Amino acid sequence: MSKLAQAQAIPPPNPLEELTAHLSDDMKSVNALILERMNSEVPLIPQLAGYLIAAGGKRIRPLMTLASTRLFDQTTDRPYRLATAVEFIHTATLLHDDVVDESDQRRGQASANTLFGNQSSVLVGDFLFSKSFELMVEDGSIDVLDILSKASAVIAEGEVLQLSIQNTLETTLDQYLQVISAKTAALFAAACEIGPVITGQPSEIRQAMRNYGHHVGMAFQIADDVLDYQSNTKELGKSIGDDFKEGKMTAPVIFAYEFADEKGKKFWIRTFEQKELTEKDLEHAQKLIKTTGSSQKTLDLAQNHIKLAQNALKNVGDSEMKSILHQLADYALTRKN
Amino acid sequence: MSKLAQAQAIPPPNPLEELTAHLSDDMKSVNALILERMNSEVPLIPQLAGYLIAAGGKRIRPLMTLASTRLFDQTTDRPYRLATAVEFIHTATLLHDDVVDESDQRRGQASANTLFGNQSSVLVGDFLFSKSFELMVEDGSIDVLDILSKASAVIAEGEVLQLSIQNTLETTLDQYLQVISAKTAALFAAACEIGPVITGQPSEIRQAMRNYGHHVGMAFQIADDVLDYQSNTKELGKSIGDDFKEGKMTAPVIFAYEFADEKGKKFWIRTFEQKELTEKDLEHAQKLIKTTGSSQKTLDLAQNHIKLAQNALKNVGDSEMKSILHQLADYALTRKN
Repeated sequence: MSKLAQAQAIPPPNPLEELTAHLSDDMKSVNALILERMNSEVPLIPQLAGYLIAAGGKRIRPLMTLASTRLFDQTTDRPYRLATAVEFIHTATLLHDDVVDESDQRRGQASANTLFGNQSSVLVGDFLFSKSFELMVEDGSIDVLDILSKASAVIAEGEVLQLSIQNTLETTLDQYLQVISAKTAALFAAACEIGPVITGQPSEIRQAMRNYGHHVGMAFQIADDVLDYQSNTKELGKSIGDDFKEGKMTAPVIFAYEFADEKGKKFWIRTFEQKELTEKDLEHAQKLIKTTGSSQKTLDLAQNHIKLAQNALKNVGDSEMKSILHQLADYALTRKN
Repeated sequence: MSKLAQAQAIPPPNPLEELTAHLSDDMKSVNALILERMNSEVPLIPQLAGYLIAAGGKRIRPLMTLASTRLFDQTTDRPYRLATAVEFIHTATLLHDDVVDESDQRRGQASANTLFGNQSSVLVGDFLFSKSFELMVEDGSIDVLDILSKASAVIAEGEVLQLSIQNTLETTLDQYLQVISAKTAALFAAACEIGPVITGQPSEIRQAMRNYGHHVGMAFQIADDVLDYQSNTKELGKSIGDDFKEGKMTAPVIFAYEFADEKGKKFWIRTFEQKELTEKDLEHAQKLIKTTGSSQKTLDLAQNHIKLAQNALKNVGDSEMKSILHQLADYALTRKN
């Protein structure tokens, strides 16, 4: 095999893989802490939490906390507890989300509530949430506690709002943006603000990193919401068409309903408001979203947040880490799952 | 009517009413803060939280935080935020409990999950839980954050343990005590430790008040577990026999199974382990618990915790408040609901 053929055979690492490789030593410490702190005398707790955590998310939020610290300080071990706290808040919301959404899959595997029951998922979520605050208290920064307690309240508000507008075709794009800003971008923003806070950066740097996290979170969520009408279960690692089945009002549907002709409007009313789903409906929804240009319009929205995220980084001094974070924003649209 | 007859017509206030009257100005501030902080732009949140909070629990936990402060300081307003935080943690656990227990009644009314759905109950619980940490952060005491984040994790652990041993007749009295110490007494202990912490009392006073709260919490929960096999729905303000239907392993059942003859053992195995319930079973369970002396043995257990709670107060300087708290411990057994 020629050198060129070899190089073609092994795809270059994507920005998330690059970030993970760059922070691999730090992540070892965080992973050890995750295992240690999800432990309990009550065996069901590490069993259930371990199931979800071992199922292996991409750990993108704790990576954000580590990266936002390493931009400014190469040696401090303060981000470990806080990155763990961020991951626990995320895991707790996943556990509660799956109960709320009645999901049967998560990351391509049976969801925790399917295996362990809704009851355990609610309570172990509560446990992880409490543990995240224990970790923050050990770190001792009231600023970080302030950031993450506010983010947690905003996440819950966003989830309730999402539930309130479910199956409601009158939902506006603004309402959708409010939901994802709360349920997804708030924790990304908080995770990215922690680094500048614990390394004592001035407030404009805090705000810049907060903006970066917010816009990356928006871009990833918007792209996810398009993928839910595009990829198949295997690629996305979650049940495809979940949003459709749950009547979740995401941007592709909001646009597709807006752009629909009379026949199209009737389809959306039947499937979303009257909740009458037949087997072929998902396929038809996917087709409508594509042909009306709704998926492209949604992707443009994501692209705009990518630009805003990258602009926010202009206030931060240049470094290899900054360049990886710059590329990571693009990855919201270039990834396939 | 003679003066004697008049005095007999109006029953004297019970210790909880006395405590509430004594702290009525403080409770006004706490109630205002409860209403203010459960508010949200998302209307479902104050609707649901307000339903549960207005349904009017006895507010015994925030009263404990106020009382434990007023023992040492008559004027500080620091306990208001923290009493609100304690009530929010309690309300969040009630919301999640009702989802876990699939309860259809709470305090004599339809439970929130029955009216608003399990999904909203989970998420509004998360919201209140986050808000409680926001309130603690505003107060700024890392010691209080430490106490309440640990208590929250212990509560969740206790709830998971309770779920794990459900319907298991081999459950030991120690396991039962571990469950109620975690799910109930931990928050009472934390609520009572806050006063000495924010008024700067020495560690032995902190420990004394913590012990008082723990033992009062134990006594109230043990007495509750007896009442669940004694009173009727109207008196207890919750569905009677819930513990029986849910297969909850409480002290009256643990004793009754231990003391049962062969026929009795078969009854408990059928109803608890095989979960085969007929209409007359609750009545028979009540009878067995009474005739085997199990209810009396459980009440003795509660009485012991009342004594320990009152002993803990010996380390605290005498005052009218202390004397009310002393009587409040007795109230665990003298109340009827």
